[in-house]
Amino acid sequence: MDLSLDAFLALPEAEQVPLIGDRAVLYASQFERATLDRLCAVAEAARSLHRTQHGATFLGGRIPNRMALNFFAQPSSRTFMSFNTAQAALGFERVSVRDVGRSSMSKGESLIDSIRTYISYVDVIVMRHPDEDAAATAFWAASRAHRRLRAGKREVPIPIISGGSGSKHHPTQALLDVYTLQRHLGSLEGRTLLLVGDLRRGRTARSLAQLARLYPGLKLRFAAPEAYQMLPDITAQLDAAGVDWERVPTLADGLSGADAVYMTRIQDEWDGPKTDGHVAAHPDFRFERSHLDQLADHAVLLHPLPKRDEIDPAIDELNDPRVGYWHQERNGVWMRVALLAWLFGVDDVILEAVP
Amino acid sequence: MDLSLDAFLALPEAEQVPLIGDRAVLYASQFERATLDRLCAVAEAARSLHRTQHGATFLGGRIPNRMALNFFAQPSSRTFMSFNTAQAALGFERVSVRDVGRSSMSKGESLIDSIRTYISYVDVIVMRHPDEDAAATAFWAASRAHRRLRAGKREVPIPIISGGSGSKHHPTQALLDVYTLQRHLGSLEGRTLLLVGDLRRGRTARSLAQLARLYPGLKLRFAAPEAYQMLPDITAQLDAAGVDWERVPTLADGLSGADAVYMTRIQDEWDGPKTDGHVAAHPDFRFERSHLDQLADHAVLLHPLPKRDEIDPAIDELNDPRVGYWHQERNGVWMRVALLAWLFGVDDVILEAVP
Amino acid sequence: MDLSLDAFLALPEAEQVPLIGDRAVLYASQFERATLDRLCAVAEAARSLHRTQHGATFLGGRIPNRMALNFFAQPSSRTFMSFNTAQAALGFERVSVRDVGRSSMSKGESLIDSIRTYISYVDVIVMRHPDEDAAATAFWAASRAHRRLRAGKREVPIPIISGGSGSKHHPTQALLDVYTLQRHLGSLEGRTLLLVGDLRRGRTARSLAQLARLYPGLKLRFAAPEAYQMLPDITAQLDAAGVDWERVPTLADGLSGADAVYMTRIQDEWDGPKTDGHVAAHPDFRFERSHLDQLADHAVLLHPLPKRDEIDPAIDELNDPRVGYWHQERNGVWMRVALLAWLFGVDDVILEAVP
Repeated sequence: MDLSLDAFLALPEAEQVPLIGDRAVLYASQFERATLDRLCAVAEAARSLHRTQHGATFLGGRIPNRMALNFFAQPSSRTFMSFNTAQAALGFERVSVRDVGRSSMSKGESLIDSIRTYISYVDVIVMRHPDEDAAATAFWAASRAHRRLRAGKREVPIPIISGGSGSKHHPTQALLDVYTLQRHLGSLEGRTLLLVGDLRRGRTARSLAQLARLYPGLKLRFAAPEAYQMLPDITAQLDAAGVDWERVPTLADGLSGADAVYMTRIQDEWDGPKTDGHVAAHPDFRFERSHLDQLADHAVLLHPLPKRDEIDPAIDELNDPRVGYWHQERNGVWMRVALLAWLFGVDDVILEAVP
Repeated sequence: MDLSLDAFLALPEAEQVPLIGDRAVLYASQFERATLDRLCAVAEAARSLHRTQHGATFLGGRIPNRMALNFFAQPSSRTFMSFNTAQAALGFERVSVRDVGRSSMSKGESLIDSIRTYISYVDVIVMRHPDEDAAATAFWAASRAHRRLRAGKREVPIPIISGGSGSKHHPTQALLDVYTLQRHLGSLEGRTLLLVGDLRRGRTARSLAQLARLYPGLKLRFAAPEAYQMLPDITAQLDAAGVDWERVPTLADGLSGADAVYMTRIQDEWDGPKTDGHVAAHPDFRFERSHLDQLADHAVLLHPLPKRDEIDPAIDELNDPRVGYWHQERNGVWMRVALLAWLFGVDDVILEAVP
Repeated sequence: MDLSLDAFLALPEAEQVPLIGDRAVLYASQFERATLDRLCAVAEAARSLHRTQHGATFLGGRIPNRMALNFFAQPSSRTFMSFNTAQAALGFERVSVRDVGRSSMSKGESLIDSIRTYISYVDVIVMRHPDEDAAATAFWAASRAHRRLRAGKREVPIPIISGGSGSKHHPTQALLDVYTLQRHLGSLEGRTLLLVGDLRRGRTARSLAQLARLYPGLKLRFAAPEAYQMLPDITAQLDAAGVDWERVPTLADGLSGADAVYMTRIQDEWDGPKTDGHVAAHPDFRFERSHLDQLADHAVLLHPLPKRDEIDPAIDELNDPRVGYWHQERNGVWMRVALLAWLFGVDDVILEAVP
């Protein structure tokens, strides 16, 4: 990395991607189809291995003597906990920073110095940060830091994985969403996916949309209140890639023929201090009990969670096989195992270990 | 579990117990004498094994490839740390949630959704929560969640262990208290136990009293300011079980013939914001240096800790063998090892490993 | 330990040292040269072993079945994280307390009772505390606690390691600083070390100065604003030990012939609430780009970090071999491995394992 930090951050996403290679996970747009297919296969293999004590112990010996840092400057339950479980499953030791007030940032240290410091002590950093550029900054710092990881005969920078950057990117969620869709639907090609809710600041929906280009024939429908519609940066990428997408006025309008419905929450944490509780889901973009009846038997209802009132709570009590979001959570563990395995070069050995 | 959550929570404790079986630890009242004796034996066996490197390593291999969550929404030192050490001693990986502001609950997620989520990622949940019903709610969620643990040929729900629920229940403290009494006194049968302090909101004293019915001849004395007396729900249980109990006006009045004194702190954290420091112990319910002289040589002074001024601090400097509360703390590790071993079906193998 | 806590704390540092022996790390002044040389050798051996998977696994099996507590009541990134990594490298399980509001201290428990409690659950305590006497108090508590560690045929108190006590002591930082100087300069004897910044409340500079007596011919220069000059307690120790030291008016005045420059930050966290951001470094005590040109080729620029503006940020971009503070961070891991190995008696076996 010869660029200065400012020069690197000034590059458009598409020009950052070739510099990132396989040394960081910052954007869904950095993944090619072959990598996605491989990650899904490794996730499936790891899941299968973990079912037996013998296989779980094999998996737990794949990445020994390594320390993973989970640096979450924003609240998280799922991403934090699934990365933690995934790391443990591969043999990582783990440490977390969740309150920057307890770190040296409270003494005035810059983010870049903090990252440089973490690089001195850990072997991979998973980070969630409100600053859009935080993960890219960390990647830049890792690329230039003197401390490297031995990876076979190469020496490589400490990998950085975004666990959610500002309101724009959540690439590992997109990976697990694709894995979930593939498990439920068999294949994504030719399918119709309805995304609902806060698509403007919903980094999960944005990142998932960025993967659509990899699945020929996959159609996207966006159902969102006007103020929360998908931003042009994403729709421009879809247009450039020839992805078939459309806006629909309400959730109900998008249900017909949908193979998957991807609900999201109004991300009102970006709206500043709240005075009167959470923003309720707009009724036109709320998934009701009756909508479930309109879904095909093979279809699936997803949500990156946490949810509030945008899905009728009664749906949780139905035990309907189309309710996929609790499975989606668990899929996150195995996709994150796959991602870490890939970054540390043990994906092959996991694939080969499945009988 | 076919009941709705509301229906389950509406059941009296005694009717919840048969539904809990051995899949959660919510109430002291759920334990039978045979289980208590077994847990004490396993605690003793684990302690003995851990004394050698060989035994400690054996113990540390009993529950591999499992993740324990310590979810403490209220402050804790002892319960948190002893569970953590107990889990490590058996081979668990561990993760904790101690600040719900860092979890997705800060985004408006319900407790039940949070628990469902944790169930996706971990294999046992130890939880402390200010809400009386939180642990029971978690058990209900675990009973209905699709994710199960393989336990031999069965598939069982993720176990839930209450590490303190509201002001009512602290079952694992009661277990370690019984273990401590047994170690100091040889047996609890026919003994006299004086409980002192805030018996109304002292969940440790309440839970311990619930176990009295299992030890024939065990007599209870309650010394508490009127405002902090043992509540009728517990005394009614004692009456129903034929336990011999009485109220005594002051601590001094209850000392004569006592085999054990169980001190507790005024639980003023339930009184709302404090403006002028902690509530001092009432002088009639404070254990003074002079009281120690009135205790029999075989007797023991216990306290679930933390303490403030309800025990004369000079007593800590005496090195008197009757001062049992520091031993009591350490006993908590081994009883919690025993409890986890029992829940995960490795209690037999631990018992058999002791030469 | 027969002394009362008050009597122990009233002893001057020099009279506490013989009572500490090798059972705690409280003061840089407690170390003799032979111990320092041994610790540096073990640090180097551990680092070398860790480079191979085989060596790292050997190291990770040295201290099995032990729990380390990192109890940091003040913010920390480096000390916390390097101890955590060092503990993992030796095989420790780890638990941390970073927010005393989540511990029983929030219920009014005394520090000494909290420490006694931790001793019940863990096998070594690393602690950082704003109270000058906290670590010494913890050592006293450990010395008198009934719980002991088996160490060969001895039973010893749970070791206490200060990770920073008030504004006075940071002994393990001084150890890693000496290790860093030795790695960069070959030897400290006859060298000239310039310490710059807040020497009054800079516990790292104070502790490092205390080690100067062990290296014949090592000369110290102190460059600090008048309000932040090195306090007489340290200069009196230097005088008593015959160390050659002087004050210089500005950083620039001390550069000539300096083999190492040790920068520190204005420790304004001790100044009470800040209303208008951090205190800027005084221009006369700021390390500028131009100062680097005045340093000898073999010289090294150190900083315990975190830094703010007391070093020109452009220096980080130069990749100059004299910029040593990022290496210094990493050295902290290995020195802390060495220290733990020494306290747990596995230093010899690590030294012998290097081919």
